[in-house]
Formats: sequence, structure tokens, C-alpha cells
Amino acid sequence: MRVPKHIGVIPDGNRRWAANLGLNKAEGYDKGLDPGLQLYHLCKEVGVKEITYYGFTMDNTKRPALQRKAFTAACINAVKMLAKKDANLLVVGNSDSPMFPKELIPYTKRTKFGKGTIKVNFLVNYGWHWDLGKLTTEESALKSNSYKGLHSSDVSRIDLIIRWGGRRRLSGFLPAQAVYADFYIIDDYWPDFKPQHFYDALEWYRGQDITLGG
Amino acid sequence: MRVPKHIGVIPDGNRRWAANLGLNKAEGYDKGLDPGLQLYHLCKEVGVKEITYYGFTMDNTKRPALQRKAFTAACINAVKMLAKKDANLLVVGNSDSPMFPKELIPYTKRTKFGKGTIKVNFLVNYGWHWDLGKLTTEESALKSNSYKGLHSSDVSRIDLIIRWGGRRRLSGFLPAQAVYADFYIIDDYWPDFKPQHFYDALEWYRGQDITLGG
Repeated sequence: MRVPKHIGVIPDGNRRWAANLGLNKAEGYDKGLDPGLQLYHLCKEVGVKEITYYGFTMDNTKRPALQRKAFTAACINAVKMLAKKDANLLVVGNSDSPMFPKELIPYTKRTKFGKGTIKVNFLVNYGWHWDLGKLTTEESALKSNSYKGLHSSDVSRIDLIIRWGGRRRLSGFLPAQAVYADFYIIDDYWPDFKPQHFYDALEWYRGQDITLGG
Repeated sequence: MRVPKHIGVIPDGNRRWAANLGLNKAEGYDKGLDPGLQLYHLCKEVGVKEITYYGFTMDNTKRPALQRKAFTAACINAVKMLAKKDANLLVVGNSDSPMFPKELIPYTKRTKFGKGTIKVNFLVNYGWHWDLGKLTTEESALKSNSYKGLHSSDVSRIDLIIRWGGRRRLSGFLPAQAVYADFYIIDDYWPDFKPQHFYDALEWYRGQDITLGG
């Protein structure tokens, strides 16, 4: 079976999930941790080489403080959880800002945990304009599939993006690495993650041709 | 009815359409002209302010010469056809390359034709790496929704991208302007365009929330 090398994960719908249950929107984020871990294990099992999780963005930090604190805490916990697994882990985001949690500074250099079997990228206080804004002509950046010159230069081209929560858009997710990616949308909210979602996405991906823009 | 201000059009499936009819793949491109014109009229009718057509890319020019000549001719004809309508027209692409058709050089400066009612952008020999490669930190490029510093800086943020031909990806289409765009996919091939496709896309778009990453 043809398996994507690199999967991008947009774990959307935490707030809508909470609101549907009559909870405060901020209470949805914590329910995203277990799905993230399950997905990590599934990816490792089928031989995916790299996963990128969309944690939170600079845009997201403009939300009410209660929500901001909740998603920041969930991301800190998620990264620490992944650091207990086999993972070659990197947190990518604007760490010059007070919105970037201090606890995650040590993870902004790629580090092998366990056997480091799978490359895991986690976007925290990420902004697409921040990412592209580092490009300079001097570096003759972005020759075809090299991402030299981006803040996210250590994140590879993405093969498959899976988005939960039914929306069909990138919401600023890694514009350069996503240019050739196939999008698979799952209507269920991220806290309602099921392994079958992942298998359905893989099955669909298997039927796509890969042209890389050719 | 909430109407998208700016629609991006990925007119895919010309080659598959031709192959299905037992024609040479190159014969499909010419059949894309009339759909392009129909779509222009529909957009104008409902009050869309800007359309961007994905003509061909630097990647595409690596295809067999017969195909390359056919899609280049189709793009030249499409631009000339739009220049006979009300359009504030701009061709965006790498015009320093021999792959850029000389006939379209005059259109690389935005020009009003007729009443210039609707902004029309047409990508010709476009490359996402070429586009982003112009960015320089000196220009403090890409402050939120300004695209200053891009080769495509005169193309606005896209609200809705409609892709024909069933594939669910951007294929390098304007990565910066597409970051918040909603994607609507039509399984039919572009030469099989029907006005209903467009109305279905508008209807779907109307049901989407607009957060711009917030």
C-alpha cells in the first residue's frame, strides 16, 4: 500500500464539540490530547515518516484569554506527551513573542526522544506570514522543493493533509509545504477522532495520482 | 446572499476529458475557453469583484511539447478573449522565461478593458517558488493580509477556490493568497463545465463561516 511519507494534521472542532455538549468552548482542547496520541501510534504503525500537528497560530491568540490559556496548555501537554515516545521532535513557531509558552522553548531545536523513529513537528504560535516573512532573495530561497529561507525550513513537503471538523481550508497551515498536498476532510470534530478516520484518509490517498504539479 | 469577493479557478481535467473521448490529450485545452468565458459572465452577474484563473505553471511546461503548445495557445486565446470584455486584466507569471508567450507581455501590466468592472488575474508560466522567491526581509513583507514583496502582490486574498476535475489540492496555486480560502471541488472535468457547478459552489460557500484564521 502506498503510504504518505508526511501527514499534516489540522485538528479542528474542539470548541464546537464542547459547545454541542453544553460545555464552555475552552473545555474542548483537553479532549484533543488522546486523539493526537492515537494518531501518532497509527502513523508509526503504517510507516508514515513525518507528522506535523497544527497546534495554535498567532491568529488564534487573539481569542478570549480563557480559550487561549486552554489551547496553550493542551499544546504544552501534547508536546511533553510526544517527548515520552519515539519521536524526532521539533516545535516550530514564533518564540520571540510572549504568546509562545516558555515550557516549549527547549523543543525549538529538533531533538530525538526514544529511538527517534518518526519525525514529529508541532506548530505553536505559528503564523504563515511570520514563516514566509523570513525569506530573502539573497538566499535564493525556495528552489523547487527546498524550503531554505523559511522559518519552517526543517519541515518537509506534505503529502496528505487531514483536517477534522468539516472545514475545507488550510487556515494558514504551512503554505509552502502544502502546495502539492492532497486534502482529506473529516466532518467529525477532532475530539471524536476514530482510527477509522485515519484508515479512510489513507485509502482515499491511495487512489490519488501524484504529479507534484507536473 | 453572501458572495465571495474573489474566486480562484483551477480548471483541471482537460487532458482526462480528451483521453476519455479517445482524442489526443493536447486536444482538451481548447475546450476550456468557452467555460472560462461562461464563468466570467456568471461571476460578473452575481457581483464577484475579482477572478483568478490558473492558466499554466512553470511545472506544467515540462510536459510533452505538443501539450505545452496547446495549453499555451489556449491561454493566449483566453486572455485575448477576456480583453474584449469588461475587465481590469493582469497576467501574472515569470515573463523572463522563453516559456512565457510574447503575445501576453502587454498584459503583464494591469489594464482596463471596456468598463473594467471586474478584476481578472490570469496566471501564465506561474510558479509558487518563483512567486515567493521575490520576498525580502527588507520589505518586511507579508504583514498579515498585505502581499507586498510577492511577484503576485497585485492579486488579493482569495475567498473561494473552485477546482474542477476532482482533485483536492492546490497544485501550487497562489500559496499566500490561498491561506484562508475555502475549497470547493467539482468532480466533472473543466470542459464539461455547467453553470450549476458555479451555483453549487456559491451555495456551499454561503454556509461556511469566515474566520480568517481567528
